[in-house]
Amino acid sequence: MNNPSTSAPSTRTRIRRLPELANYERHALYEIIDQSYVCHIAFNDGESTHCMPTACWRQDDYLYIHGSNGGRLTKTLLAGAQVSIAITHIDGLVLARSAFSHTMNYRSAVIYGVFEAVEGNINKMAAMDTFMDKIAEGRKTEARPGNDKELAATSVLRISLAEAATKISNTNPVDKEEDLDLPVWAGVLPMSVKHGEPIHMENGAIATPDYVTHWQKSV
Amino acid sequence: MNNPSTSAPSTRTRIRRLPELANYERHALYEIIDQSYVCHIAFNDGESTHCMPTACWRQDDYLYIHGSNGGRLTKTLLAGAQVSIAITHIDGLVLARSAFSHTMNYRSAVIYGVFEAVEGNINKMAAMDTFMDKIAEGRKTEARPGNDKELAATSVLRISLAEAATKISNTNPVDKEEDLDLPVWAGVLPMSVKHGEPIHMENGAIATPDYVTHWQKSV
Repeated sequence: MNNPSTSAPSTRTRIRRLPELANYERHALYEIIDQSYVCHIAFNDGESTHCMPTACWRQDDYLYIHGSNGGRLTKTLLAGAQVSIAITHIDGLVLARSAFSHTMNYRSAVIYGVFEAVEGNINKMAAMDTFMDKIAEGRKTEARPGNDKELAATSVLRISLAEAATKISNTNPVDKEEDLDLPVWAGVLPMSVKHGEPIHMENGAIATPDYVTHWQKSV
Repeated sequence: MNNPSTSAPSTRTRIRRLPELANYERHALYEIIDQSYVCHIAFNDGESTHCMPTACWRQDDYLYIHGSNGGRLTKTLLAGAQVSIAITHIDGLVLARSAFSHTMNYRSAVIYGVFEAVEGNINKMAAMDTFMDKIAEGRKTEARPGNDKELAATSVLRISLAEAATKISNTNPVDKEEDLDLPVWAGVLPMSVKHGEPIHMENGAIATPDYVTHWQKSV
C-alpha cells in the first residue's frame, strides 16, 4: 500500500520521519489535492510565521488559491514569500495492543515554493471555472458568471507542484512480537468524509441539478 | 450562528478578513481542537518556512503534540521556534446563484506561541493517557502502557491556547438582491466526518470494546 519512490525533488521534500512511507508519485499528490477543499499555507510576513487555511484546487501541475486583492494573505504571498502548503486526510485510527504502537492512517502532501499571480481576466476566469467544476461539475454554466468588477476585486494565485512530497500511511496495527498475545482488541477505526442531505433554498421551484441529487452518493 | 466577541487576545489573532465571523470564545476553540485528530504547524527553522501535519490533542488550556526525540519537528520546536498552528473543519459547500458568491461553511482555529516540553515520565504519561482517551475512551486501561524505554524515546510538547482565535462560518447562500430571481439552484451541500465499519484483527477471540462497537454511531 505504501509506494515509496527512489528520489525526492529537493532536500526539504525528502521525508525524514518514516521514509518508507514517502510517495513522490504525481497521481497520489493529485488525488490528495483533488479530494480536499482546503489547504494550510505556512508563510512568514517578516514579523511572524503564520498558518492559514484557505480553499484550494488544482489544474495540471499547479495548486490554485484565490482571495480578495486587499487581503493580507494575498499581498504577502504575491510579495514573494516562500511558502509551505500542507493538505492532510485522516483515514483511520489504528489501535495496536500496546499504547505506543497506536497510529493513524493518513494521506498528506507538502508543497514548497512561491505563489505567482494568475494575470488577465481570461486566465483568472478559466481558473475560477476549474474551481467551480471541483465544487459542482457543470455548475459553471448555470450560476451567474463573475462580472468584471467581481473579477477585478479577486486575486487568483497559483504555485507549481514541482517541489512536493506525499506521505501515505495505510496499515493495520503493527505490534511487537511480545505484545501479540496480549488480550487486547486490535484493529482499525476507519474515517472518511460524509456527504449529508443537501439543504434546498428553492422549494422545488427550480430543477435540482444532478450534482445535488447525487451528492450523498458521491462518496 | 456566528458569535463574534468584542476583543482578540493579540494583534495577530485579530481576524482581518470577515471579522464578523471571528469567535474568540473558549468553548468554540476547544470543540474545534477536540474534534480534530490533526493540526498543521507552521514554523521556520532558519532556512525555510514549513507546514507540517501532526496528531494533536487538548488538556485544559493547552494543545499537545508528540514526536520522537530525534525528529526535526521536535528539535526545532523545542529550540523555541515561534509557531502558528491551524485546525480546520469543512462543514459544507454553499452554492449561491452567482459564481462569486459561492463559499464554504467551516470552523477553524489558529494558535500562536512557542511549544514547551512536558518534562518527567509521570507528566508525559498523563498527557499520553489524555491522548488515548481522545482516540478511544477507556482504552488506556486495556492496552499495554508505554514502558520506560518507549517513554524516554518520545517527546511530548504543549503550547498554551492563550493566543488563539477561531473563525466559524455557518451560513446559507447569500446572493445580491439582483441575483435572487435567477433560475439557479441554491443551497448547501453538507460535509462531515464519517466513521466506517471497524476492521477487527482479533477474529472474535477478544471481546469487542464499547468504543469499537459504538464507533459507527458516534458521529
